[in-house]
Amino acid sequence: MQLSLEEVLTGIRPVEQAWRVKARKRLDDLAIPRDSLGCLLDLAEQLAGIKESMMPSVAKKMVVTMAGDHGVVAEGVSAFPQEVTPQMVNNIVAGGAAINVLAEAAGVGVTIVDMGVAVDLSSLVEQKKILSYKVAYGTQNIAKGPAMTREQAVQALEAGIEVAGLLMKSGIELLGTGDMGIGNTTPSSAILAAFSGRSPRQVTGRGTGLNDSALENKIKVIEKAIAINKPDGKDALDVLAKVGGFEIAGIAGLILGAAYYRVPVVVDGLISSAGALVAKNLAPDTVDYMIAAHQSMEPGHQYMLEVLGLKPILNLNLRLGEGTGAALAMNIVETASRVIYKMLTFTDAGVTGPENTEGMVHA
Amino acid sequence: MQLSLEEVLTGIRPVEQAWRVKARKRLDDLAIPRDSLGCLLDLAEQLAGIKESMMPSVAKKMVVTMAGDHGVVAEGVSAFPQEVTPQMVNNIVAGGAAINVLAEAAGVGVTIVDMGVAVDLSSLVEQKKILSYKVAYGTQNIAKGPAMTREQAVQALEAGIEVAGLLMKSGIELLGTGDMGIGNTTPSSAILAAFSGRSPRQVTGRGTGLNDSALENKIKVIEKAIAINKPDGKDALDVLAKVGGFEIAGIAGLILGAAYYRVPVVVDGLISSAGALVAKNLAPDTVDYMIAAHQSMEPGHQYMLEVLGLKPILNLNLRLGEGTGAALAMNIVETASRVIYKMLTFTDAGVTGPENTEGMVHA
Repeated sequence: MQLSLEEVLTGIRPVEQAWRVKARKRLDDLAIPRDSLGCLLDLAEQLAGIKESMMPSVAKKMVVTMAGDHGVVAEGVSAFPQEVTPQMVNNIVAGGAAINVLAEAAGVGVTIVDMGVAVDLSSLVEQKKILSYKVAYGTQNIAKGPAMTREQAVQALEAGIEVAGLLMKSGIELLGTGDMGIGNTTPSSAILAAFSGRSPRQVTGRGTGLNDSALENKIKVIEKAIAINKPDGKDALDVLAKVGGFEIAGIAGLILGAAYYRVPVVVDGLISSAGALVAKNLAPDTVDYMIAAHQSMEPGHQYMLEVLGLKPILNLNLRLGEGTGAALAMNIVETASRVIYKMLTFTDAGVTGPENTEGMVHA
Repeated sequence: MQLSLEEVLTGIRPVEQAWRVKARKRLDDLAIPRDSLGCLLDLAEQLAGIKESMMPSVAKKMVVTMAGDHGVVAEGVSAFPQEVTPQMVNNIVAGGAAINVLAEAAGVGVTIVDMGVAVDLSSLVEQKKILSYKVAYGTQNIAKGPAMTREQAVQALEAGIEVAGLLMKSGIELLGTGDMGIGNTTPSSAILAAFSGRSPRQVTGRGTGLNDSALENKIKVIEKAIAINKPDGKDALDVLAKVGGFEIAGIAGLILGAAYYRVPVVVDGLISSAGALVAKNLAPDTVDYMIAAHQSMEPGHQYMLEVLGLKPILNLNLRLGEGTGAALAMNIVETASRVIYKMLTFTDAGVTGPENTEGMVHA
């Protein structure tokens, strides 16, 4: 019953322009000065287009936190040891992590998926605390060779698609992406470099908090990963397999699934946007379904958003991951959905419109 | 029993630095990479400082929408006729306005106060749909003389203080400001010009949507208002009385009351920030209690935020007023409060800290 990657890629369609136009017409008639709710109106239009409805409910919200480990941590690219990945998975399961607090505040559920953590998490799976689509116990070290095989990349993408399908069938109306994986800003920056042609130096940041010499080492590791693997920026599967990660592939799959099932998906920060880049390069129309949660502090993230053509909702100097930015932004997305179906037009409200429409500023 | 303006101004104290330091220490120990929740941590520190508590709850939230009319609309400074002010008050009472939808989405209450609408709203007062502290039926035309007397300015400020006190006593933990008043970007820009010395041309925008020639007229009207009234930027009451508005005075009073009662207050856009400027110039420590909701599209607003020294939470191209930006930002403020008291530290969570603290980036 599982959908193949091929089926999903051929099934993704762009958002219907006719629905966007219809939605914008109603938004223009709301009893407010034209365009005065700015980005909320753009979001409302996008949601109406995706859902093909003037009542695009996104009340049922879920962040999916994909977890995986990275062989490249052997090169000293993170301030934290690899054991922190499963520790943080346990912390999220226990409800004490940032994503739990931010998701609860926004009325958002959290689904944790083991895509490739380097230790056995089967007891959490048996307790139904997490889902497991574990591809392997961490990726290979990208400074020495490919992260994974092409087959593993497809397997991880199809897992993400399946998670999107399960959640869509359970009634989820708005998806968010999240990540947990010590070392994962390194493959994320490598993916950006491979797709954009920008140098590792331009796109690499301090991650969880590297000092200058550790940052210099991280840049050299990414340069080495690119030089050894020669990822082909025109072949998204090649990039993903050679310099990606299992949780990044899971996120890319989740986004492909969201587009396939026509569910809007809020993309978190750097790692999630690396997944979004993979999804876009596999199926360009997926960007119609993406909403950028925030502008991360990581320098590569602004380039990712440029390539994706997305404007971030928030700019709060976040750089945590886990899906925290997505959870925080989801409330604003939900508010935008209510603007289109709960607000009154000038006529509905019995409010006099502007005296001279020539005097109105049109965007 | 009503507090006098003088009592409030002498009673306002700055936020205790010791509480900020204590809060930051806990925030630095959370099981996240240092500073990775960016502005949420700054907000959490501010809330803990204001409430002098490591559990600074802001769950009970209220936006106060102050309404008033402006004699200066006779000069053609707005695209909408004056009758829209009471129509929009009725629309908010009926629950169909933007502020209702945004407030409901964020779990925020809305209190409407008639500070000086140009028509009789006593039936809404009798039905307990709105509060009334009506000072007069609209201000005088500032292009021809002062907006109000100095006594009226004090009366309106004390009304705002009283509203803050009523809400504080009813258990409200987070206040937001809002405005409704056709023509009120004109006195707001005039207030900014008077306090900052910037020219009307620099600080004046299109409001609800003026075209080029109408904008030019608005600038000339503000220049005239400044030239005729000669507001003294060193005397906040003089500025308020000469070029202000009743709802702007009410907002300033609400902010003074919030600082006096040690309740954080989320300041909406241009009109609310004009009120915040008046409050700051009456009692500089009030800025410790202010949170800027968003960066408005109105050009003067960025100068106001600079003068206030506030960093806006959102930048969503809003320019609606009513308190809509405040309502939208309040959810993020509430999330910040939860970060400090619901998240676990590294020790609590049993998560390994960074391997080499010298490698950590400290802000």
